[in-house]
Formats: sequence, C-alpha cells, structure tokens
Amino acid sequence: MAENKLGRDIPRKYADQYGVFEGELAHIKSYKESSRQVKPVKPSDDKLLSSIHEAIEKTGLKDGMTISFHHHFREGDYVMNMVLDEIAKMGIKDISIAPSSIANVHEPLIDHIKNGVVTNITSSGLRDKVGAAISEGIMENPVVIRSHGGRARAIAADDIHIDVAFLGAPSSDAYGNANGTRGKTTCGSLGYAMIDAKYADQVVIVTDTLVPYPNTPISIPQTDVDYVVVVDAIGDPEGIAKGATRYTKNPKELLIAEYAAKVITSSPYYKEGFSFQTGTGGASLAVTRFMREQMLKDNIKANFALGGITNAMVELLEEGLVDKILDVQDFDHPSAVSLDRNAEKHYEIDANMYASPLSKGSVINQLDTCVLSALEVDTNFNVNVMTGSDGVIRGASGGHCDTAFAAKMSLVISPLVRGRIPTFVDKVNTVITPGTSVDVVVTEVGIAINPNRPDLIEHFKDLKVPQLTIEELKEKAYAIVGNPQPIQYGDRVVALIEYRDGSLIDVVRNV
Amino acid sequence: MAENKLGRDIPRKYADQYGVFEGELAHIKSYKESSRQVKPVKPSDDKLLSSIHEAIEKTGLKDGMTISFHHHFREGDYVMNMVLDEIAKMGIKDISIAPSSIANVHEPLIDHIKNGVVTNITSSGLRDKVGAAISEGIMENPVVIRSHGGRARAIAADDIHIDVAFLGAPSSDAYGNANGTRGKTTCGSLGYAMIDAKYADQVVIVTDTLVPYPNTPISIPQTDVDYVVVVDAIGDPEGIAKGATRYTKNPKELLIAEYAAKVITSSPYYKEGFSFQTGTGGASLAVTRFMREQMLKDNIKANFALGGITNAMVELLEEGLVDKILDVQDFDHPSAVSLDRNAEKHYEIDANMYASPLSKGSVINQLDTCVLSALEVDTNFNVNVMTGSDGVIRGASGGHCDTAFAAKMSLVISPLVRGRIPTFVDKVNTVITPGTSVDVVVTEVGIAINPNRPDLIEHFKDLKVPQLTIEELKEKAYAIVGNPQPIQYGDRVVALIEYRDGSLIDVVRNV
Repeated sequence: MAENKLGRDIPRKYADQYGVFEGELAHIKSYKESSRQVKPVKPSDDKLLSSIHEAIEKTGLKDGMTISFHHHFREGDYVMNMVLDEIAKMGIKDISIAPSSIANVHEPLIDHIKNGVVTNITSSGLRDKVGAAISEGIMENPVVIRSHGGRARAIAADDIHIDVAFLGAPSSDAYGNANGTRGKTTCGSLGYAMIDAKYADQVVIVTDTLVPYPNTPISIPQTDVDYVVVVDAIGDPEGIAKGATRYTKNPKELLIAEYAAKVITSSPYYKEGFSFQTGTGGASLAVTRFMREQMLKDNIKANFALGGITNAMVELLEEGLVDKILDVQDFDHPSAVSLDRNAEKHYEIDANMYASPLSKGSVINQLDTCVLSALEVDTNFNVNVMTGSDGVIRGASGGHCDTAFAAKMSLVISPLVRGRIPTFVDKVNTVITPGTSVDVVVTEVGIAINPNRPDLIEHFKDLKVPQLTIEELKEKAYAIVGNPQPIQYGDRVVALIEYRDGSLIDVVRNV
Repeated sequence: MAENKLGRDIPRKYADQYGVFEGELAHIKSYKESSRQVKPVKPSDDKLLSSIHEAIEKTGLKDGMTISFHHHFREGDYVMNMVLDEIAKMGIKDISIAPSSIANVHEPLIDHIKNGVVTNITSSGLRDKVGAAISEGIMENPVVIRSHGGRARAIAADDIHIDVAFLGAPSSDAYGNANGTRGKTTCGSLGYAMIDAKYADQVVIVTDTLVPYPNTPISIPQTDVDYVVVVDAIGDPEGIAKGATRYTKNPKELLIAEYAAKVITSSPYYKEGFSFQTGTGGASLAVTRFMREQMLKDNIKANFALGGITNAMVELLEEGLVDKILDVQDFDHPSAVSLDRNAEKHYEIDANMYASPLSKGSVINQLDTCVLSALEVDTNFNVNVMTGSDGVIRGASGGHCDTAFAAKMSLVISPLVRGRIPTFVDKVNTVITPGTSVDVVVTEVGIAINPNRPDLIEHFKDLKVPQLTIEELKEKAYAIVGNPQPIQYGDRVVALIEYRDGSLIDVVRNV
C-alpha cells in the first residue's frame, strides 16, 4: 500500500502503474505527444458504409481493442448501446471502452460486462445502475475515472490509445465532415468527440443526417474520419436536455447562489473583462442570475464564459454582458443552436483546449473564477463528486479538479446537509479534487475561505456574508444530522480515481 | 543513377534516400503519424515575449535545428527575414528552413546561405534572385521542392520535423489564439501555417495586432502555441496581393479561357453540385468568368470551389453560384476578408485537408475539375512549373501535382509559345506533374486530350473546340519558334523534386 500526498491509501500495484498524487503540478513535464496509425484515403475511396456491422468489419475491430464514444447526447445517446450490441452479436470480446462519460441510458452495458464483451472502462462518471453494478464489483479490472482534462491528457499521452472511435454526429457529409449544430439530434459542441477524432487510429462517424459535401461548420474534419455510417437515429433530443435544470426556487439554494455571486462580484477578479464558469446545477444557474444583476448595476462585462454551456450563459452573451462563450459541451437545446446563431462569439473548443494539463495552455488557465458543486467536502477542503454517502459510485469527475486548480478563484457550493446526510465531513469518501485547489466553500449558512488563500481572507474581511471555518461548517452539519456512520467497504478496488495529471488521487472499493 | 517511372535520372544516393517515383499511388501506405514534443503550459505561465530575440532564446533554438514559416503574406512577408536576421546576429548556424514557400522578398536569404546560417531548404517554390542563386549552386545540399500536399505529407510523416515554427499572424491574443482575418496585415486563410502549428515542437506566433483574450475566429489555437511576440509590422498588405491578377484582356488568353470553360461545362462532371478549382493566373480568372456565364445560362450551381482563393470566387459565392468555398490561401484582400464576412460558407481549411496524399481524405479527392498552368508540357503530358527554358529555378510546385492527380478531370492551360519559347516540347526540363495525372491540355489553337482518358475522348468527340494530339501541339509550337536548344546543365544537383508521395520525380542540376 502506498499513501499519496492526501494520505489516501493506494494499493501498491496501482501506485506503481499510475504513480500517486503528489501535488497539482508534480507530474507535469515535457512529453512526446501520442500519434495515430493512419490509413490514407485515396481519391477513389468511399467512406460511406451501410451499417454499424460493416463499420466494425471494415475497421478490423477485434478482441482486446479500445473503442471510444462521446457523451454529448447525455441521457439521449443511442450510439454506445447500438455499437456494443453489434459487437456482442459479432462475438467480439475483451473490449476496453473509453467514452468521455457514461449515463443512465447505458444500462445495457451491465450485461456486456457480465458477458465478457467489455472488460475495461475509463470514464468521467458512472450513474445509477451502472455505477451501482460497478460498486458491487462486477468487473475484474477497476474502472479508471478521469476528469475531462485528465481524459484529454491521457489520450495525448497515449495512456488511452483508441483503436476505433465511434462518434455520433448530428450531421455529416459522406466524407466525414461533421458537426453537432445541424440535423435531427443537435447537441451543439462536439468538444469531447473532437479529441477522439484527432487521436484515434480509426474514426467512424455515426449520423442520422447525411448532408451534401462539404458539410459546414466543420467540428470534426474529414481528415480525422475513416468511415461514415447512416442510421435511423443516433439519439433522443429530449434525452440530451434531460436533467438540464431550471432556475431553482429552493430558498436554501437561492441563498447559496446569492452568497456565491457576492463572493465573485466582490472579489479582486471581478472587473471589466473578467471570466467565469458557473456550471449547470440549479444553484449554479442562480449564481449566473445574481451575477447578471450585479454586472448590470456595475456596468461590468466579462470577456468570456466557459464550460458546459446552458441557455443562461447564452442570454448573457446575447445581452452583451459576456463577450464570448467558449463551449466544450451544451446542456440544453438553446445553447446548442446558439453555436450556429452566434457563431462569431459562441465558439466550440475541444477538451484539450478546455482543460488538459498537458496542453500548451488550456482555457481554464485563463479563467478568473469557477463555481463547482460537491457531494462531500472535508475539513481539508477535499471534494468528492463521485461516490454517495453509501460509498456507491454515482457521480462524475467532469471538469471539477481541472477548473478548481486552474481558475484564479474556485468556489465550491453546497448545502450543509442533504436530507439526513452531511455534506461537510471529516474525510470525504472519495477525493476528486484536492483541497489545495479549492479557494472558497459556499453554503447557506456562510462561506469558508481556504487558509492557504490569506490574500482572499484579507480581501473578504468586510464582506457581508457570514464567514466560518471549514471545521465550523462540518460541526454545524454534524449538529443537524449527527455524525455519519463509516461505510463498510470490501477489499476489492472497483475504481481508480486519477487526478488530472494521471496519478492516483484515490481508489474506490466495493460495497 | 536510378531511373524513375518517367525515365528521369535520379542520382543513386538520393534515390536510395527518398525512393523514386513509381506511379501516383505506389508509395501511399498506412503509417504512424508524426507527433510533437510538448512543453505543457501551466496556469501561471505567460506566453508573451518582448522580441524575436527573446523567442529564439526561450525556444532554445540552436545549430542544426529546423524552423518553419508560412507564405500567406506572399511578397509582403516580413517575418522570415526578421527571424533569419536575428538568428544570424545571434551566431546560430546550420539551420534548416521549411517555409511553405519562398518569395522574391526573401532575397536576404542568399546571404544567410552564403554565411552558413541556412544550410538546408525545403519549399514549394523559389523565385527570381533566390531561385537563380540556388540554380548557380550556392548551396551544398540541394533544396527539396515539395508540393503543398507533399509538404503536409512530409510533416505528417516526420520527413520534416519542425523544431520551431515562427508563424506570422495578423491577429493574436497573448495566449496565441490567432487568425488571418483581423488586424493590420490581413492575409485571410492561415491554411499552410495551421499544419506547422499542429506538428512543430514549438510554435512562436509573431503578430503586429494583439487583441484581448480570447481572439476569435481561431485559426491557430492556443493549444498549438508556445510563445507570442508582438512586433511593429509582420508584413506589407500591398505585398500580399502583389501579382494577384486582374481579368486578362489578352485575346490569346481569353481564347484559352473560353476553350477551358467549354471543356468544363461540356464535361460529364458539369452538373448541379459540381466542384472546381480555377487558380489565379490571368487566364484562370477568365475561365471562372466564362464558367459563370454558362452556369447562369444552365442554372447550374457548384457545391464548392477550392484552392487559393481570389475575389472572382468570392463573387460567385455571393452570387449564389457556388455554395461554399474551401480556402487554404487567399490571393487578394477581398477574398481574405470574405472569410469573416461569409464565415458560414467561406471556410478555412489546412494544407493537410486541402491536399495531403497521406491524410484520411483531402478535399482535392472530392474535386471534379481543376485548371492548372504550365511553363512547359511535353508529349507525355508531363508538366513543368518549376524551371524556365534556361533551366533556372523560378517557379513553385504549389498544388499542381496534387490537384492534377486527385481531381476527376484536370485541365492544364497554356499558350503554345511564350515570346520565342515553346511551351510544348519533347521533354520538359523538370517534371512537377506526371503526364498520367493530366487529362486535358488547353491552348489557344485547341485542346489535346490525354489518350489515357478514352472516356473523355469519346465524350468530347463533338465538342466545338479544335482537338489535336499533344504531338501536334508541340509541332505547332516548334513551327512558330523553332526547336529549342538543349540546356547545358552542370553535374551538381541543386534541387530535388519530390512527388507528393515523397519519392523523387526529378532533380534540377546547376546551370
């Protein structure tokens, strides 16, 4: 057993294989970028195939290979199930899958795991039944959880080498020029898919809307595509926006949002040309609304907003309060189609540019402030967004540890307790983001500033928001719901939690 | 000495090193793409440097390295001279330069060669004094001439590995997001530079227009950029458009253009949704004009036009006769700014997507017809666009052999003679494009269809344009100006002519 910098126990064999977390920049070094094996396409070659079956044949997909998918269709994705079903039917086994994330809709994956079709998984997250099944220990090899920036890093560094990427595209021409803004199942940005397209040896575009050549705008260019398959439907537009939240009416969330907005608009970073990422939860959307009011009052505009984008951001853009949006993913239909309508100012970026710690500079490095959620926060400011209070995997790493570290001021917002469960604890079940990356924690009873930011403590000393220590937040939470009972984990490791640099920041054991 | 498929003598040592031309597709095979050594940029890192001098220091540029430039500023480029002067001043020697092309304005290069600063050159072309100096034999190592597609191929295949790319950008932010459509020295598309940015170990953006972050549109993203240097001026806007021709009034050229347009609009490829590339010479522009008339008459629209773009193309786009323009380079100011104005339909592509034979499918593979120029055409339809009738290097390979091969029907247009020099000859001085890639030759006295295209011969049998054999064209040319005297070459090889696949299609000897 090895212990990493946060005191987390990492089994020796994984520690040796991945390295252990030693601080945010400890493993960031010059490296030779991964590259792909390319089959040149000649003038007479045709890329259009008649079925997923034919694509699997043509790519020569076989036992032991790694395939990837993107999660831009979220709960509306048909592509991963469609491809895995066909792979299973063809008798191919021992496949590693490397989707950018996994949703509830991918429940059929459980059978493919049990049948030996899928034997390795890396993903940002695992939800509901798939998460529960993994936590029960149905896989021999642990799932590798990677942040969005960490996944881009892993692909660039060849930790993930994709043999075949199956990329759903809302529109494509027969030569593979694809985008997410036209077609029947528009998802907007294809930011996560763009990375797979660039690095995978072979790329299959799966579309339900074939358009004349050349399809523009070009998110994925023909030079990254080997084959194009047209299917009846690649996804359910309703499912894409599922869970996309509205402004909260919950008074507790509104108070959190108000405090968060106050922290941001009172911070040293809030000035003409600042930048922010506010995310997609109910409280996060409310933060954007409160910020808007203050920005109008102060006549201050942001240079850019970043992230997973919602209509709330697009409204700020169209109102002129935000000059540009840099968009790696869209969470609702209005933001997806804004990419087209506001093409000059609403800009698609890939996951590498969004958040990779091994890139020549990601956008988050330029970010002033970000608002992040939490399932748990401990007294070292470590954040868990992965496992529930029962120890079961149900979350997603997302861009949490990426933005928390890179932004000049990161806010983690959360109610003190949820139901009978404290959010603030002595020790989080699973660390996704190290406390050293978190600057301010915001709750409905007040904020806690990380002692490693004396500059912020000094700056905010007169802020009209209650200020507490992180211990006080924990004590208040425990006072409401009592001390949490420790989880009884088994001794099998079911998930490895990579920090964005590829080292292990934690592991998850079976329950 | 080895003989290639066209009967050209290639000295053994170069034949062994590069391989010899054996047919257009003989060397196109699956390969592992080149990749770069990346120095990750951390959140606190700053990319903005104060001078070219500092950029050379920071990149660690030293003797023996390879640097690159792009030629989008054409005769208005200041960047290459500026950088080479500084390198020379700093005492660095034995540099290989890999610009996408070299113009007259780069005459100071001659001294840098003589002083041992520059010892290897690869380029698409060499003009006037630089070409003449090379032909005289001032370099120990031969220049390697590559087509635009061939250069993209060479970079992807690691035949050219760029240590540092110095890329002039009309606008950039301090983190390196750059484009060619905003700023003081707009050149439009940065298609050739985009390739260097993607593959070079280190990239320095040189700009005279620094804009707030994030600069959009993003032609070169921050993730491809290590440093940004602001200088007073990166180029002369006048020089960019220099040589950009107007519609010809020369009756001979008009007749050639009329014949070429007739061939195209009578061809089997001319139908709703066809595609074309017509290039930039006076006659080429006239071809576009004649095509326009016929397209209006027939109510036929093109899906896309390709290539080096001129205002003539943009007018067709804005008139609705062409649905989209795919643009790797702009030859005048109106076409440069159209990239912004017509953003949805006028689309920037990189050189890899334009023409690389090792890509997963370049745009030229989708091209119906192209119009190309010639300095010489021989009775095997081989084309020379590189050396004059005196054997001196003065041309550029450009996209000639790329488009000639890939387009479904390639036209080579040329007057029968120029002054006292025959264009049609027994054997061209230098082969750039093999005759097997050329379908129709168009002159003011009529056309010659390549016998390897019996389908076209049959299709055009009733075409109301005089038809001759290629031998007859040569005889007519010789009848006007007499048989050309053979050039007295020396025995030193001053340039290697790569075919687009990297094999040697010819060499040029000193004169």
